[in-house]
Amino acid sequence: MLTYHAQLELRKYIARYLYQSRGVECSENQIIIGAGTQYLLSMLCKIVGRELVYGIEEPGYNRVRFIFKEYGQVVKPIPLDQNGINVTHLKDSKVKVVYVTPSHQFPLGMVMPISRRLELIEWAKETGGYIIEDDYDSEFRYEGKPIPSLQSLDSNEKVIYMGTFAKSLIPSLRLSYMVLPSKLLIEYNKHFIGYVQTVSRLHQHTLKLFIETGQWSRHLNKVRNIYKKKHNALLTAIRAHMDGKVKVMGSGAGLHVLLEPKNNMTERELIDKARKQGVLVYPVSTFYDQPPHQECPQILLGFAGLDENGINEGVQLLSKSWF
Amino acid sequence: MLTYHAQLELRKYIARYLYQSRGVECSENQIIIGAGTQYLLSMLCKIVGRELVYGIEEPGYNRVRFIFKEYGQVVKPIPLDQNGINVTHLKDSKVKVVYVTPSHQFPLGMVMPISRRLELIEWAKETGGYIIEDDYDSEFRYEGKPIPSLQSLDSNEKVIYMGTFAKSLIPSLRLSYMVLPSKLLIEYNKHFIGYVQTVSRLHQHTLKLFIETGQWSRHLNKVRNIYKKKHNALLTAIRAHMDGKVKVMGSGAGLHVLLEPKNNMTERELIDKARKQGVLVYPVSTFYDQPPHQECPQILLGFAGLDENGINEGVQLLSKSWF
Repeated sequence: MLTYHAQLELRKYIARYLYQSRGVECSENQIIIGAGTQYLLSMLCKIVGRELVYGIEEPGYNRVRFIFKEYGQVVKPIPLDQNGINVTHLKDSKVKVVYVTPSHQFPLGMVMPISRRLELIEWAKETGGYIIEDDYDSEFRYEGKPIPSLQSLDSNEKVIYMGTFAKSLIPSLRLSYMVLPSKLLIEYNKHFIGYVQTVSRLHQHTLKLFIETGQWSRHLNKVRNIYKKKHNALLTAIRAHMDGKVKVMGSGAGLHVLLEPKNNMTERELIDKARKQGVLVYPVSTFYDQPPHQECPQILLGFAGLDENGINEGVQLLSKSWF
Repeated sequence: MLTYHAQLELRKYIARYLYQSRGVECSENQIIIGAGTQYLLSMLCKIVGRELVYGIEEPGYNRVRFIFKEYGQVVKPIPLDQNGINVTHLKDSKVKVVYVTPSHQFPLGMVMPISRRLELIEWAKETGGYIIEDDYDSEFRYEGKPIPSLQSLDSNEKVIYMGTFAKSLIPSLRLSYMVLPSKLLIEYNKHFIGYVQTVSRLHQHTLKLFIETGQWSRHLNKVRNIYKKKHNALLTAIRAHMDGKVKVMGSGAGLHVLLEPKNNMTERELIDKARKQGVLVYPVSTFYDQPPHQECPQILLGFAGLDENGINEGVQLLSKSWF
C-alpha cells in the first residue's frame, strides 16, 4: 500500500542524488516536493516574507517573474554580464531575495564561474538576503568540469536550491523540488501544516524505485550522451549552413541555444519565416521585463526533441528562411 | 506522444460524465484540472476577487477554511440545520462566496434537499453571490434518488462545481477539477495564462483511456456496490453491538459516518480509548471554526478501507472501549 512514506523515501533518494551530483548537503526533511517550480516558488514567497524586493535575472525565466508578482512581491530585474547576474547592480538594488540559474542561465545560457558564485554568496551574507538557485537543467553539461552548486559553496544557509525532473526525465510528471535552509524549514512546517501535498504519490513511488534500482543514473548517462550528440550536431549544422551569418550563444550545456542571425530581421519576422518552413523557434524578448531594442534579435532554439538528421534538416530550413 | 491534447481530451470526458451523472452542463473549456481541491480553490480566490467575505459550513472542511484564510479572504462560519447550510443565517451575513457540500455535508453528512438548494440558488441570484458546490463524494449514495446538483438547478451561472477522483478512484493521483461559469472563465484565462498546469499528463492520459473504454463506469458501479455493502455492514454492526448507546449521523451516502456515543466521554477520551483497542477514529471538533461544547461529542468513522469482517470486528472493539 502506498502511504505517506512513498514521499519520504523519494526525498531520501533525491537528497543522496543531489549530494553526489551537485554537492548539495541536506537532510531529506529539507526537501519539499511540489507540482512544478511555480507552485514551489509560490510557497516560498509565503515563508520568506511578503513585501520584500525580489531580484530576477534580466532576461530571466518569465514564469518565475510572473509568480513573484502574483504573490505580491516587488520584482526588480537585475542586468547580466558575460558571467551571469551582475552583483554590483544587485548590491545597488534593494533586493532581498534573488532568483538565479547559474548552471545554464535561462535564457542566455552562460555558466556562472566560481568567482561570481562566491561574490553572490558574499552578497547574501552581507545583506542577509536569500539566493534561489534554480538548477533546472544542470544534468546537461557537455564541456568542461561542472562548477559546484551555490548551495554547496554557501555555509550560511542562504541558498534555496531548486531542481526538477521535467528536463532530465519527463515534463508531464509535474515533479519538482526545493531544498530549504533549516530556518526556512521551520517556517515552512509552521505555515503549510494545513496543506495537502500536490504530487502524485504513484509517480513518487515509481520514481523512488527508478532511482533505487540504479536506472535513474543509467538513464542520465544515456540521455546526457544523446543530448551531447544532438548538441554537437546542432553546432556542426550551424557551422555548415550558416557560418558567419549567426552568432551562437549559450552552447555547452542544457537543451537549447540562442541564435542571433545577422540579417536585420525583427524577432517576429525571424519566427514567422522559420514557421513557414515548418521550423518552430521561440522569441527571447518575452523573457525580459523591459525588452531592449536590438538590431539583431535573438531566437531560442530547442534541440532535445529532434534526432540528428532532423536537427541538420531544421538548420538548413532555418538558413533558407533567414538568408 | 503526449501533448497538451491529453488534458483537453480528459476534460471532454469529464464534461460528459458530469452531464450524465450530475446533470452538470458545461463545455470542456469550462473545466479546470488541478492538483487537488486546495490548489483549485487558491486559483478561484484570485479570480473571484480579493477581500470578499467567504462563507463556509460550520462545521465544514477545515482544509478549505485554511485556504480561504491563506489567500487573504475574510471567512465566516455559517451554521447548519438538518437540511444543510442555513440560508437565513447566510442572508444575514455579508458573505459573497459560499462553499457547500450538498451531496453529503462534510463532516455531518446530511444531504441537502431540493427546496434548500433552490433557496440557496435564489440567495446567489439576489445578492450576486457565488456558490462553490464541492461534490467530493457524490458518487456514493446508497438510499433514495440522487438530488440534482446545484449547478444543474442554477440558470444564472452562479455555481462553481468541484469534483475529484480522490474518493471515487484513488487519492494519490492528485487530480481534481472545477467547472467555471463563463464569466469566471474569462477571468481565469486572463489571470492564469502564465501558469503551468499542475497535474501529471501521464495520469490525465491514463484516466482519459480509462473513461473512454468504459472502465470508469464499470469501476464506479463496482465500488458503489462494495461501499454500499460496507456501509450496510457498518450500520448492522452498530445495531448489533451498540444499539441505543450511540446516535448515528450522516449515513446513507459517502465513505464515513459520525457516531455520537452516549457515555459522557470527551472527544479526546473517545479517540484514545478506541486507539488502545487498535481502532482509528477521528475528531469532529477540528472541522469547526468555533468548536461548541458538546456533552456527547461526535466522532468520525471511515469505513472504505476495511472489509465487512473488519468493520464488524472494529465496531465490537469500539463498543468494548467506549461502554
